[in-house]
Amino acid sequence: MKTFGAVEAGGTKFVCGIGSGPDDLRTISIPTTSPHETIARTIGFFQTAGVELSGVGIGSFGPVDLSRNSPTWGHITSTPKAGWRDTDLAGALARALQVPVAFETDVNAAALGESHWGAARGLGGCVYITVDTGIGGGALVEGQPIHGMVHPEMGHLRIPHDHGVDPFPGNCPFHGDCLEGLAAGPAIQARWGAPAEELPADHQAWPLQAKYLALAVANLVFVLSPERVILGGGVMHQQHLFPMIRAELRNILAEYVRAPALSDLDGYVVSPRLGDRAGVLGALALAMKR
Amino acid sequence: MKTFGAVEAGGTKFVCGIGSGPDDLRTISIPTTSPHETIARTIGFFQTAGVELSGVGIGSFGPVDLSRNSPTWGHITSTPKAGWRDTDLAGALARALQVPVAFETDVNAAALGESHWGAARGLGGCVYITVDTGIGGGALVEGQPIHGMVHPEMGHLRIPHDHGVDPFPGNCPFHGDCLEGLAAGPAIQARWGAPAEELPADHQAWPLQAKYLALAVANLVFVLSPERVILGGGVMHQQHLFPMIRAELRNILAEYVRAPALSDLDGYVVSPRLGDRAGVLGALALAMKR
Repeated sequence: MKTFGAVEAGGTKFVCGIGSGPDDLRTISIPTTSPHETIARTIGFFQTAGVELSGVGIGSFGPVDLSRNSPTWGHITSTPKAGWRDTDLAGALARALQVPVAFETDVNAAALGESHWGAARGLGGCVYITVDTGIGGGALVEGQPIHGMVHPEMGHLRIPHDHGVDPFPGNCPFHGDCLEGLAAGPAIQARWGAPAEELPADHQAWPLQAKYLALAVANLVFVLSPERVILGGGVMHQQHLFPMIRAELRNILAEYVRAPALSDLDGYVVSPRLGDRAGVLGALALAMKR
Repeated sequence: MKTFGAVEAGGTKFVCGIGSGPDDLRTISIPTTSPHETIARTIGFFQTAGVELSGVGIGSFGPVDLSRNSPTWGHITSTPKAGWRDTDLAGALARALQVPVAFETDVNAAALGESHWGAARGLGGCVYITVDTGIGGGALVEGQPIHGMVHPEMGHLRIPHDHGVDPFPGNCPFHGDCLEGLAAGPAIQARWGAPAEELPADHQAWPLQAKYLALAVANLVFVLSPERVILGGGVMHQQHLFPMIRAELRNILAEYVRAPALSDLDGYVVSPRLGDRAGVLGALALAMKR
């Protein structure tokens, strides 16, 4: 069995792994400091592991350049994260390790991981959304991550916002009351004065949160019609949100879009099954797929 | 050069064509009456044309079944159109003509036509939206029409609706104020008491219409990030809408999504170049692609 390397390159840590699947993956975590130091430690982990790698997959924070024909393919591009702008992450690993390197957004990698070994196993079309300090999304269409002209920014979907019910104006610095501005962790904190994990399950925050997330999921159904929608990230640790989101989604779709999967929303809007390992396992799947 | 057949199967007429491209396509129009009569006349057109067809492509009104593995692939399924429910359109043509038949939604076919010979020529990723008595959309990702679990229903996207500015509640029988309920031809008629083509270019209808369409285009950018967006259909004959939509889109995106194509919105949000022939030429492209 071939062995691959995987890197979930995040803004606070790089999770690096070696293996051939969920059962044998061993990982380490490297804090994200400067590109020079972090990438050197990542390379060092793979070089000193004592195994021959058949390839490495990277799921990276962004924005990133995914265009294979672009001179800056594999770079982290215009990130506000200090020091990381225009960093050739994929190139650095490819040169040092002399193996094929595959490169994706972190959320596309997570979608891929869940479709290989997790909550969307065997399904060609799924969406993975993370609701955390921001909101991001990755999507597979017929097993392939969607890139488009630039990678998708599903967190910034525009959705209905009833100012009478929710006077909070939204806090996205670009769009005000886009999805992220209304429903990411910082919006919950700003609106209610406490972070999501401190709000009781019967708090009025939750019906509103469920509504916004259901509107976003509905829009994804209308555009991509995925076979499953996986909602992950810190805010989604509040498991009581899931039945509320499903009920709202049922109301919003109003039986217009009919498909067997939509008649059982319990199986349609789900938690990630790989938990915190979705990203690094997705990077592994990416390396294996290449 | 091979010759192909093309069918744009619409709710009011079937446009049938024979040829190998835009320059030699000859078409006829058959009124959509009963399935039996309409399909028989369609088959008759191809059988009596005196040319050997290498295949036929169909872009059909819906809902349709696009799943190749489904026993009802190629059927028009749960349409409210009298008599047409559960009609095996692709199968009827394949059996009568004994040629390979390719089958798509009308809007996916139009997107394909525009990407082959029209406004999105050479681009792998584009969206075609028609704004008419309803709103529908088709999308290509890396040259392939998106199917998903069911075909997309972009017309029913949920977008912000400021009831203070626009008290019209929307007239989609399923969703009220979804995109179609706010911005299709019947919504314009119901809100202003006159059809789109009778409203002067400086009517207050247009800034609102432009805003709703720009919100929908923004959501498509956030999810699919297409390389071009083509807006067709009767309402879009109002050419003055285009600069207004582009200006609204620029405001909504707020420079968050950056790509060369988005710095020139004149070339990004465009009219169909194939005009009324997008559908039938798309069906032809579909047959040739197969």
